[in-house]
Amino acid sequence: MRVLVLGGDGYLGWPTAVYLSDRGHTVGIADNFARRNYDHELGVESLVPVQPLHVRVAAWTEVSGRQIDTFCGDISDATFTRELLQSFRPHAVVHFAEQRSAPYSMIDQAHAVYTQRNNVIGTLNLLFAIAETDRDIHLVKLGTMGEYGTPNIDIEEGWLTVEHNGRHDRVLYPKRPGSFYHLSKVHDSHNIEFACRAWGLRATDLNQGVVYGQEIAASGADPRLATRFDYDAIFGTVLNRFIVQAVLGHPLTVYGSGQQTRGLIDIRDTVECIRLACENPAAAGEFRVFNQMTESMSIEQIAKTVTACYPGPSEIEYLDNPRVEQESHYYNVVHTGLVELGLQPHRLGDTPDRVAVHHRRTAPPPGQPGRHATHDQLAPIR
Amino acid sequence: MRVLVLGGDGYLGWPTAVYLSDRGHTVGIADNFARRNYDHELGVESLVPVQPLHVRVAAWTEVSGRQIDTFCGDISDATFTRELLQSFRPHAVVHFAEQRSAPYSMIDQAHAVYTQRNNVIGTLNLLFAIAETDRDIHLVKLGTMGEYGTPNIDIEEGWLTVEHNGRHDRVLYPKRPGSFYHLSKVHDSHNIEFACRAWGLRATDLNQGVVYGQEIAASGADPRLATRFDYDAIFGTVLNRFIVQAVLGHPLTVYGSGQQTRGLIDIRDTVECIRLACENPAAAGEFRVFNQMTESMSIEQIAKTVTACYPGPSEIEYLDNPRVEQESHYYNVVHTGLVELGLQPHRLGDTPDRVAVHHRRTAPPPGQPGRHATHDQLAPIR
Repeated sequence: MRVLVLGGDGYLGWPTAVYLSDRGHTVGIADNFARRNYDHELGVESLVPVQPLHVRVAAWTEVSGRQIDTFCGDISDATFTRELLQSFRPHAVVHFAEQRSAPYSMIDQAHAVYTQRNNVIGTLNLLFAIAETDRDIHLVKLGTMGEYGTPNIDIEEGWLTVEHNGRHDRVLYPKRPGSFYHLSKVHDSHNIEFACRAWGLRATDLNQGVVYGQEIAASGADPRLATRFDYDAIFGTVLNRFIVQAVLGHPLTVYGSGQQTRGLIDIRDTVECIRLACENPAAAGEFRVFNQMTESMSIEQIAKTVTACYPGPSEIEYLDNPRVEQESHYYNVVHTGLVELGLQPHRLGDTPDRVAVHHRRTAPPPGQPGRHATHDQLAPIR
Repeated sequence: MRVLVLGGDGYLGWPTAVYLSDRGHTVGIADNFARRNYDHELGVESLVPVQPLHVRVAAWTEVSGRQIDTFCGDISDATFTRELLQSFRPHAVVHFAEQRSAPYSMIDQAHAVYTQRNNVIGTLNLLFAIAETDRDIHLVKLGTMGEYGTPNIDIEEGWLTVEHNGRHDRVLYPKRPGSFYHLSKVHDSHNIEFACRAWGLRATDLNQGVVYGQEIAASGADPRLATRFDYDAIFGTVLNRFIVQAVLGHPLTVYGSGQQTRGLIDIRDTVECIRLACENPAAAGEFRVFNQMTESMSIEQIAKTVTACYPGPSEIEYLDNPRVEQESHYYNVVHTGLVELGLQPHRLGDTPDRVAVHHRRTAPPPGQPGRHATHDQLAPIR
């Protein structure tokens, strides 16, 4: 099938494009290179060198013999977005093209407003472009588990059946997140659900946990295919920062008690989840939600996993929590939808070598499976 | 107290400013005149002539001896918004400064995007300006009953206590509205709730029903104080359009069966609700929600009320429904919060002379109560 990856130059967009191309799909990438500009703005960079998009795409063609089309532009430009869909004619659009960092949205008023405007209007333009081009185009949208916040009830997959005063309804799962960034994705979800209901669009909203890992089998073939490893205070996830603290011989800094619990997912599972969502589209008019995570861990558990795996001395330091957040809270997440489609999850504890340090391994010959061969045992391409 | 009315040149903003000024508050108005520009864009106008803001304000000073400060600018400009709050130093900000028409947001992609950008970013800027100026400033935000959609359970006031798998939580009431305009207000509510939770702001979110009526006692004193009466397809409410259809001798056109039910409120109750909210502020950190409506009626009931009241022949015509909406649905709304603060509701059926045709009545002497004297029996000004 034809799949357009928006934000396909980013941390997850790029490996997703490579993975889908490797699995035989015809892939296009659109990107405005905002993620690279954030590096320039903040004065930070990926620990793993990242090649320009045109170099990556050429390297992928060299390694695999497959083409990836590229489109440079910004989906907050409605004309670009409409023309993009009308020229590429995708069966599915995978939408990573959003500002994705809560700390970035917290820098100041301007960054908060930028984040909501960029994310909400980009997605709105995309909904209109799909409605005008072909309502059967399946929108696969990246959301985040952070949208839910930490409710005192089980977190279901996007919808909740409620009984109230003796009557029932199936409602959108109520969300109370902790940043204007996370709120931008809550807004997106409401807008997309309406577009499904009013226009009959098909959408899958993937509420993703914190992603870890930097490599998938297909991109391990050539260092030019590598994706980002962010460890700064704005774009680095807590796990990446713990790893870098351990390598530098610094204590792993935990805010408060570290009992804050979050959902996690391995990058190899991310790309597989997106393949599964694309190949098993939502029905016409359906707003389908999956919780794209494979396990829950507290911040303290993540820190302890890193100290246990790191092949040198490593310790944890507990700091006063500078954030307004619940440190101790209930957290029980349903995440069965993608497993039912065929996902075979990796677990953080099962792959300690990948957690502690980055090992560049010998590439398998082009076209041969790498060591993560389980991916090749999954469902065939439609 | 000092009250800043954003959008104070609009249909409800203006009478609210006059009413609060009449009740002894120090009132400021900010407006970017967007509402007047929509008239020029659409080629429509208010049936009742509306004076420019400077004429209205001068007339109000002439009639009442009271001043209203005016500020011309756009709250989607963050600098204007910050400087506005820092110069006026309000105790409460009443926020009407949003694009308020669902049909306007449905004109095309550009109008949908404009509506969400204008409303969401204006409110975001306001939240930041309050946080930077004085976190005790009480935000009184106009939302709409349309945010809820038509759930199959009772509509509570903004929050819902849920039991799920044996556990309980108090969650934001789940909303599924029917336009990108209504969604902009859902987004606002989520953003405001977060600002209350993270920054300790005080906010009251008023989910208002369909407002009818064109006059309050204080503005009846002088025709220069009149507010709008919109009857066009974009800004006119269904009730106003029925009235105009009756006057023109046209049939009252009902979409589908007319069993679609909505909440209503008299303009005299709107301004009183806002006074009650301002004078009884939310607590620090509280996101308080009231359903600002006084009765529910189906579209057919509204049409029948107009035909029954109109002093001439009048009939109803049922058209195929061009909208994607539930025609027959459950609709039971809790709206006790404002009554508990002292609201004494007017009912549509009790004031048939106001519904059918517009009567300009003799003004009471300045400073004396008009015929709606019940307002003067309510709680004193703090």
